[in-house]
This record gives sequence, structure tokens and C-alpha cells, in this order.
Amino acid sequence: MRAALALAARGLGNTWPNPSVGCVIVRDGRVVGRGHTRPGGRPHAETEALRAAAGRTEGATAYVTLEPCCHWGRTPPCTDALIAARVARVVVALRDPDPRVDGEGLQRLRDAGIVVEIGLLEDEARRVNAGFVRRLEHGLPLVTLKLATTLDGRIATRTGESQWITGPEARRMAHALRGCHDAVMAGSGTLLADDPELTCRLPGFAPRPTVRVIADARLRTPLGARLFNAEAPAWIATRPGHDPAALAALEQRGAEFVDVPPATGGGLEPEALLRALAAKGISRLLVEGGAILSASLLRAGLVNRVAWFMAPSLIGGDGLPGFDSLGVDRLEQMPRLRVTSRRPAGDAWLVEADVIASPGPPNAAPG
Amino acid sequence: MRAALALAARGLGNTWPNPSVGCVIVRDGRVVGRGHTRPGGRPHAETEALRAAAGRTEGATAYVTLEPCCHWGRTPPCTDALIAARVARVVVALRDPDPRVDGEGLQRLRDAGIVVEIGLLEDEARRVNAGFVRRLEHGLPLVTLKLATTLDGRIATRTGESQWITGPEARRMAHALRGCHDAVMAGSGTLLADDPELTCRLPGFAPRPTVRVIADARLRTPLGARLFNAEAPAWIATRPGHDPAALAALEQRGAEFVDVPPATGGGLEPEALLRALAAKGISRLLVEGGAILSASLLRAGLVNRVAWFMAPSLIGGDGLPGFDSLGVDRLEQMPRLRVTSRRPAGDAWLVEADVIASPGPPNAAPG
Repeated sequence: MRAALALAARGLGNTWPNPSVGCVIVRDGRVVGRGHTRPGGRPHAETEALRAAAGRTEGATAYVTLEPCCHWGRTPPCTDALIAARVARVVVALRDPDPRVDGEGLQRLRDAGIVVEIGLLEDEARRVNAGFVRRLEHGLPLVTLKLATTLDGRIATRTGESQWITGPEARRMAHALRGCHDAVMAGSGTLLADDPELTCRLPGFAPRPTVRVIADARLRTPLGARLFNAEAPAWIATRPGHDPAALAALEQRGAEFVDVPPATGGGLEPEALLRALAAKGISRLLVEGGAILSASLLRAGLVNRVAWFMAPSLIGGDGLPGFDSLGVDRLEQMPRLRVTSRRPAGDAWLVEADVIASPGPPNAAPG
Repeated sequence: MRAALALAARGLGNTWPNPSVGCVIVRDGRVVGRGHTRPGGRPHAETEALRAAAGRTEGATAYVTLEPCCHWGRTPPCTDALIAARVARVVVALRDPDPRVDGEGLQRLRDAGIVVEIGLLEDEARRVNAGFVRRLEHGLPLVTLKLATTLDGRIATRTGESQWITGPEARRMAHALRGCHDAVMAGSGTLLADDPELTCRLPGFAPRPTVRVIADARLRTPLGARLFNAEAPAWIATRPGHDPAALAALEQRGAEFVDVPPATGGGLEPEALLRALAAKGISRLLVEGGAILSASLLRAGLVNRVAWFMAPSLIGGDGLPGFDSLGVDRLEQMPRLRVTSRRPAGDAWLVEADVIASPGPPNAAPG
């Protein structure tokens, strides 16, 4: 199952709106087939693994990280494929929260006389599938906040210079991070300041281009943004009521619009923004700033994880902070993190953490 | 020599104005005596080790972290003690930069027919003796900046709440840090805001109480400060010209004054402040804030190391930063650090680093 989970993790960011699943087929103590969900979400992991194991599946055990599907989607049900392959036993890590499956897949296998076990390495599987589970259960994507700061938490000098606080190794790791997310989002202020492409520019790393989303209530995205130069979807999340000619011009450049219900104050309401992205199938969202967007998501309790590159340098109190005001007056109101990993990134470090307490609504539990 | 360096490290903070030295005496492959400079600076390490090895020193090898003294100070010269003990060989890590010694000690041993080797683990010895060497060579103490911040570099909320960002384990480690410094310094703003004692409250850890220094140009230290309750020296570094009655009242409370030449603007000029402390024998200075004092030392290039407790929590952009403005407009002006250790402190981490580049004068090289 660990091997199957590692396969599943490999597909993250490339399978949306489908989950990334891993499958390993074992017969007589030997692995005879491996597979994970292919870019775009199909073929499914089971199909891949069964194909690899062709002719050696009878009586075998299939380890699958997520309950096999039992419905006709864009592919035939995996349950039927496993039954047809005459496997003897299916071990599943996690039940699929998709209402079209949700235990039905397990039942169909049992009905066919296959031994079914559920719950092996369930916690690990829940972590790998955190985005998919969160979208299915809460209608929200798993949100990871990416930061690149000095040791004193600054993203730029007071004059706005930010390139580069971290070095090339950290930037490569940040590109890899983009590659394993369904979408990367930035605020329009960051777009105007830095004109980023927001793509994963590591050869072969993201077989399916990551969606770039600009949170842009006021439709400030310029037609000449470098965003439009890259071969990856460019979405603009905005409120209704903009000049149709401006919308058409951006569409002409390749933009696709995500409609977010209007909020008081004219901005984008953070939860409505995330719900709109989840509704389009985004399960894993990487937020790359700026300070206002990041703070609004944190304040709303909608950030699940952080991926923080910390460079061994200082900018000082007049530099630009990574977050705008979080509204913390008393220490008990602080968002709290649990560090899950910490590794070198050139002379910087990448600190990865779960947000375990935040001032927002209770559904902001870590994914 | 490693054992001798470990012994030397044990005495740090307790021997000023003397260096903390370690000595291990070995005969026939066995350790026969160990010693390190005692609290207050005497007896010296060699005396201690020779006493422990009494009767077994003839023909032995003495490993000493710093060149043995050859002058009469408050104790007789250690060179004479080693000669009298008839050791055959003395291995020294680092030459003593004290002009009263500076190679003279080695020569005296050689003249007595003792085999002398110099330079074993010299880099490590230089690190242990960094404070003493810096004071002797530059007339400045080794300055370590201690910080306790959130992951986003905040020392307090916008309302000023700062107790406690880190937990009890980090606070214990911070007390241990005080214990291995000759003096702890804070600005008068921090004194007024937090009324700290600035003592090492770990039983038995600091046999000699650490000096507390308040950088207080305007003589704002209140007579009722908790600083005066503790059994440890309380120094007020200030400029000349204050009301003699105010000075007398503070003296009555136990304060001792450190005179710093007046600076333009009425504050304390950072280098003059440090020189005044070094002149009083302080080699290892721990600075515990606040943001203005820390920034002024950093801007002047006078900070050698940082000891940074980072709690896994966030306060946001409106919280109080650990440093005031550092005057960094361009990233190339950033003070840069080299992390030397990183270890858990409860749920926080203690990151220790050398300042390897800073905007200040070139004599700010790390100690």
C-alpha cells in the first residue's frame, strides 16, 4: 500500500477533477502490475495496473489507495475491471467520499465474491487525497499557501524589490510545488507588481499544465500580462458586472472567467472564491500571494497548509510582510501551525506545515 | 582537545573579564586531570587540571584550549605551574591575543624544554573563545541577538501582547542562553513594556550571576523596575548630563552606570555603547531587544550571531516586528546569516546563526 500511495502522490496536480489514485497488484508475493491515475484523470489506476499485469491477475491481490469506482463516468467502472480480471482480494486504503461511490464500489466487489479489506494506511491515504476529500466533503479546495521570505518574514524591501530573496534551488522546488497542484492562484496586485507566469517550468514534471488563477475583483489584469504567453489555462476570478468589451479582450488573450458572487466592499469574498474554484473541479490550490489575498484566506480560516521558503537573510521592519493584517490582538487568536517537514532549499529552507488552528470557521480543519 | 574545548564551553559567561579555558592532562594514554576556568575567572583551567592530576603530571601531555598565561595577574602564571609539574608536552589550540601573552607563554614553555604544539582544533577554539578574541582584537564584545518570534517574524500583537509567543521549553533554553553570556542587554523601551528581570533562573546553571544592562539614553529606567529585585549586577548604559539626584536614586536601588559618549540625536551610538561595555570586561553580550536597539546594532554591523526562537504561529503584518527599519532598499544590502544549528524548543525551534554579511563596517565579521 505504501508503494500504491507513492504512485498516487506522483499524479497529484495532474488528475483533476478526478482524484489521483495508486494501484499495485501482487500475486504469489510478487508485484505484477502498478498504475496510477494518468494525467487528465484517466485511465484510472486500476486499469493501468491491470493492463501491466495482463494474464497474471487471477487470484491476485490489488492494493488501491481509494475505493474503486462503480459508476460509468468517462471510463467504465473499475470494479467491473477488477472482477473481470478475477482478482481474489482487494485492499483499499480509503473509502471514496464521492456520493456515486461511497461504499458502493466495495459492495459490488464483495458481491462478486472478492475478499475486500478497507482502512489499510487510511491516515496516509487521507493525506494524499486531502484535496479530493476536502472538495467532495466541503465544496472547497485544499489550500496551500506558498511563501518565500527572509528569516524575519519579509517578501520584499520597502521599495518593492523581491527578486530573488531565495536562490535557484528554492525556485526549482517552488516550481515542483506548482506542478503537484491543480491550480496556482495570485492576487491581481502581485500580477501587476511582478508579472509572473505562474507555470511549472521543470521539464517533464507537470505533464498537464497547471491552471493559473488571478483573483481580480476589479479586472485589473493587463492584456499584456506574461500569464497569457504560457501554454496553460489562465483563469480570472472576478465579480459580475464588468464591461463586456474588457472581458472580451481578455478572453481573446486566452482568459477564462470564474464568476464569484459579489461581496460587500467590492472585493472577492474568500469562501465564495474558493467554492467557485472547487465547483470547476480544483481540489489542490496553491496560493502564491500577495499579502492581502493570503491574509484574507487565513483570516477566513480557509488555509490548510503552508509551504514556506525561508532565506537566511533579513530585511527589517519596514520591508513588506508576507501577510497583511490577520486581526490578531491577543495571542490566543493566532493561527497555529504544525510543522510537517523542514528541508534545505539551497541556502534557504522549505518549511511545510499544517494550519491546525485559525480564527476562521471550523470547516477549515487541515486536509 | 575536544574534551578540553567542551570544558571551556562550560565556563562561558562566568569567567569575564577572563577567557574561559579548558585543560585536559593525559599520561600514558589516560586522562589524569581536567579543569576549566572557574567562575569569576580563577583559578585558571591549568591550575585546576594540575591539581586534579597531582602526582601524576611528570612526563604528561597537557591539552589547553588557549595559550597558557605567562604574566602575574590575580593568579601566578600558568606556564610556571606547568613547568613545575614537569609535563613533557603542551598542546595548545589557540594563541592568546592578550598582548601580555601573545606567544610569550609558548616561548616560556619551550625555553623550559617542554614540547609545544599550537593550532590543534584552532577553528573550534576560536569559536569558543570568540567573545574574548573579539574584545581583545577589536575592543568590542561578541554580540548575539536573541529573538522570540512567530514564524512571520513578529514579537508581539499590534496591542503589544507578547507573553508568551514561545512555550516553557523555549523559555528555559533562553535562560540557559543568558547563563552563558557575560551580560544581557535590553533597551529601555523593552524594560518599560515588559519589566523583565533578565536573569538566568535555572538552578545551578549560572554560578556567577549574569550582568543585566539597560541601554537607556534618556534615563527612563523606573526605580521600581523588577531588574533591581534580583541578585545580579544591574548596569544602566546612558549618556552624560543627567540630573545627579536621579542618578543617585537609581544607584541607591543598586544600579551601576556605564558612561557612553553622547551621540547626535540624543540616543546612544551603538559602537560607543559596545566599546564601553567591552572596556568594563564584557566579552559575550546577549541582546534581547527591543526592535529599535536590535536594528541599530544590526545596521551598524555590530551583531555577530543570532539565537532565534521561532514559534509555529502567525501574527500578521500589523504585529510588531523583531527589528525596526534596517534601511534595506535593495536585496543586496540585506544582512545575511549562516545557520549553525537548528533544534527543537518545545513546539518552537531555536535557530542559531552567524551574521556573515551586514551593511555595517568590516570589523563586524562573525566571531
